[in-house]
Amino acid sequence: MEKEISQAVIRRMPRYYRYLGELLEEGVERISSSDLSNRMKVTASQIRQDLNNFGGFGQQGYGYNVQFLYDEIGKILGLDKTHNIIVIGAGNLGQAITNYVKFEKFGFIMTALFDVNPKLKGRDVRGIPIYMMDELEDYCAREKVDIAALTLPKEKAEEMARLLVDLGIHAIWNFAHVDLDLRDSQVVVENVHLSDSLMQLSYNIVKNQ
Amino acid sequence: MEKEISQAVIRRMPRYYRYLGELLEEGVERISSSDLSNRMKVTASQIRQDLNNFGGFGQQGYGYNVQFLYDEIGKILGLDKTHNIIVIGAGNLGQAITNYVKFEKFGFIMTALFDVNPKLKGRDVRGIPIYMMDELEDYCAREKVDIAALTLPKEKAEEMARLLVDLGIHAIWNFAHVDLDLRDSQVVVENVHLSDSLMQLSYNIVKNQ
Repeated sequence: MEKEISQAVIRRMPRYYRYLGELLEEGVERISSSDLSNRMKVTASQIRQDLNNFGGFGQQGYGYNVQFLYDEIGKILGLDKTHNIIVIGAGNLGQAITNYVKFEKFGFIMTALFDVNPKLKGRDVRGIPIYMMDELEDYCAREKVDIAALTLPKEKAEEMARLLVDLGIHAIWNFAHVDLDLRDSQVVVENVHLSDSLMQLSYNIVKNQ
Repeated sequence: MEKEISQAVIRRMPRYYRYLGELLEEGVERISSSDLSNRMKVTASQIRQDLNNFGGFGQQGYGYNVQFLYDEIGKILGLDKTHNIIVIGAGNLGQAITNYVKFEKFGFIMTALFDVNPKLKGRDVRGIPIYMMDELEDYCAREKVDIAALTLPKEKAEEMARLLVDLGIHAIWNFAHVDLDLRDSQVVVENVHLSDSLMQLSYNIVKNQ
């Protein structure tokens, strides 16, 4: 892909993918941009603009082929490949992520968890082993790891992220309450800030009152 | 507050709050918009524009008083009030959210979980009781509930959301893999789509290769 596509557009792609997946489940084969627009509550022109970034996919007056568009967006998002994920921190959040089998449907495979708590040694989460943190380096040398999910306290997140970069990890899915700054590396970071999301909710509650 | 402030600005506020909190922890009392800009990796003009939505807070050439700005943004976000949260679905994700004590620091108090699984009856998560779903209505009539966190499969999320609206809940923090559409009600919804976030990461991995 030659053209740089804005992250704002990319951020909307999973949502298209989700809605198209729902249409497929309902057996819908073809949809006009205006019907898709009504369903997704975005303008038809927004949809056309977004999809034009990737070369269109629609024919004027004929609508979109749902399966084709679903598959193409899947490819754009890299979902035609498998991504192995290790989870750093096997506390509740780490275990919750590991248990979320829906991710596997999209090609995200949890392969191991790591923790410092010796009580967790030898245990597993639905068959996925929990290793001790001192086994991380060997594991990364031995196995293909694409993504590390970081569910550590913020004080430990930065240092662990640096270690993961050194171990050759390409992407970090960060749940720690801090923005990881790894722009000096080639590593991709996606921050999930659950507190920020709660604060957004809280703002809207107060505003509504 | 008279003026309608865009959700894009509101979405950035928790991040300001987070960075200001870190500055406070480091003992920083005053910061210029350019120093804050460097730290947050946004332009100083963006910061000034964002904060001007709420009346400014800075004095030209004098910078921002960190504690004052922190407190004011906290008030804007409604963090000077306490919000009671019930968690619908006491599986791994529901329990993970409940265990995340950091939320309490910001005034979000988990008060109860609800599930249909009879094995969970009478159990608790760090002292917070798990009730059966048929106790939900009585509970909501009896207790102050501000936010319901929804950690159900998407097939059940919509119906549960409707029930919660009928029970007088003001806000839903939705983790189900579906956009809840409750715009015909007064209820505030914040969707957390973890799969979308993973797909965004996957896109950036593929793009980088």
